[in-house]
Amino acid sequence: MNSSINRTVFYISDGTGITAETMAHSLLTQFEGVKFRPVRAPFIDSEEKAHAAVARINEAAQRDGIRPIVFTTLVDGKLSAIVHQADAFCLSFFESFLAPLEAELGAVCNHSVGKSHGSTNSTGYQSRIDAINYTLAHDDGITDRNLMEADVILVGVSRCGKTPTSLYLAMQFGVKAANFPLIPEDFERMKLPSTIERYREKLFGLTIDPERLSQIREERRPNSKYASLANCQYEVHEAEKLMRREGIRWLDSSSKSIEEISTTVMQEVRIERSEDF
Amino acid sequence: MNSSINRTVFYISDGTGITAETMAHSLLTQFEGVKFRPVRAPFIDSEEKAHAAVARINEAAQRDGIRPIVFTTLVDGKLSAIVHQADAFCLSFFESFLAPLEAELGAVCNHSVGKSHGSTNSTGYQSRIDAINYTLAHDDGITDRNLMEADVILVGVSRCGKTPTSLYLAMQFGVKAANFPLIPEDFERMKLPSTIERYREKLFGLTIDPERLSQIREERRPNSKYASLANCQYEVHEAEKLMRREGIRWLDSSSKSIEEISTTVMQEVRIERSEDF
Repeated sequence: MNSSINRTVFYISDGTGITAETMAHSLLTQFEGVKFRPVRAPFIDSEEKAHAAVARINEAAQRDGIRPIVFTTLVDGKLSAIVHQADAFCLSFFESFLAPLEAELGAVCNHSVGKSHGSTNSTGYQSRIDAINYTLAHDDGITDRNLMEADVILVGVSRCGKTPTSLYLAMQFGVKAANFPLIPEDFERMKLPSTIERYREKLFGLTIDPERLSQIREERRPNSKYASLANCQYEVHEAEKLMRREGIRWLDSSSKSIEEISTTVMQEVRIERSEDF
Repeated sequence: MNSSINRTVFYISDGTGITAETMAHSLLTQFEGVKFRPVRAPFIDSEEKAHAAVARINEAAQRDGIRPIVFTTLVDGKLSAIVHQADAFCLSFFESFLAPLEAELGAVCNHSVGKSHGSTNSTGYQSRIDAINYTLAHDDGITDRNLMEADVILVGVSRCGKTPTSLYLAMQFGVKAANFPLIPEDFERMKLPSTIERYREKLFGLTIDPERLSQIREERRPNSKYASLANCQYEVHEAEKLMRREGIRWLDSSSKSIEEISTTVMQEVRIERSEDF
């Protein structure tokens, strides 16, 4: 079998398919030589839709000349059985894990459809939405109101990755993440902005390689002093000096994904979240 | 075994642990009677850290009087073997799925650590970051610049869920999602804002139950005309009339999660994304 061949990959779910896609992504990133063509098939919650999905899978098998890979998170055994009739290699998430878990927990599972990304009444969901709204309202030092409510306050020079990281913290973990830029005035005084000084235990710094920063800023304001390498070197150096002096924990974001930065922030700031299933 | 007992749940990963957490969440939401206490253990990428994780698991087992549930996404067989020595019920994601997938693909997996949420060089990652920046710059009709670049433009009355949905589309799917409010002036003219009229094929509407809208607006501006039920009823009615008249597809967001709304938008607008593994 030729390993550089294209394979169509289906994510089949009775809900959004986001769990199926996440699990597929984790597995398939392990196979660098293979090219995958993903197809989402969410909300497969009736026999009719399951049969339609099978037809699409079989079409792909014919077209590709090789059977697709199918990742399923179907809770309903009947729908799952229909999808398994397709000409495909099926990896079924619930079938692999739910029965052993039932045995271990001594509890019977609900077999309820679309649970994972569909419950808007849970406190977990509401706290994520509240966190997104809080984070948007406290982006880039817009306001110092209600800063005592923040779970974490990210600091760092302009364009070092504070905003996307804050949003990821809110969206994935339900964390209220404010962020404040460190600007030349702060470096001249060599002091933190007074509004955030009192929340020292919530502060977490991001720093970045000056060359990378200069590239990012060039895209926004080409040929400006703001984007120049010399200015980026100055700002990064001063920001690191200030954070060191003030005893603020920090992390270099240059080669880290927002998921990695966020996970590290969660660990370092020791944000404890109760989880609502 | 008592099914209402507390069980500690560990997410153990050599990377961020986000895949382990997603899979655990999908499974555990199926057991409503059981209370779970989650513990994240990311970046377990050495034998020393694996042994430390085992110690934490064993402590939890002793404290709880019942062995924890452990979800692992460890690619390294040696580290995985260490974690399996803990006094716990282990569900190992890669061990269940990677070998069958290798056989099917006729390709050998990399067994490389932290791949899923750690590659910042991939075009997929960069397009997600670009999408987040685009979406923030095009929130709430801030600007009509570069609207031709949008993959989708969400429309609807103020506070119907456009902003969190746009951000989720950007963050999860790398979709450039602009959003525009529909306001009383638009209803008086019974026409779409002229800036977005020409992008009709990209428009997708959100609507909401007026009572729910009134509740949400009350939190922001208590006792205002803006938040009053009568005004919310008026705005929602007019917005739906306008969208119907203009032939815009729409969805009621009242009882749907941002994941469900986003997945539906992806389906309806038929946004095709090439995926980069």
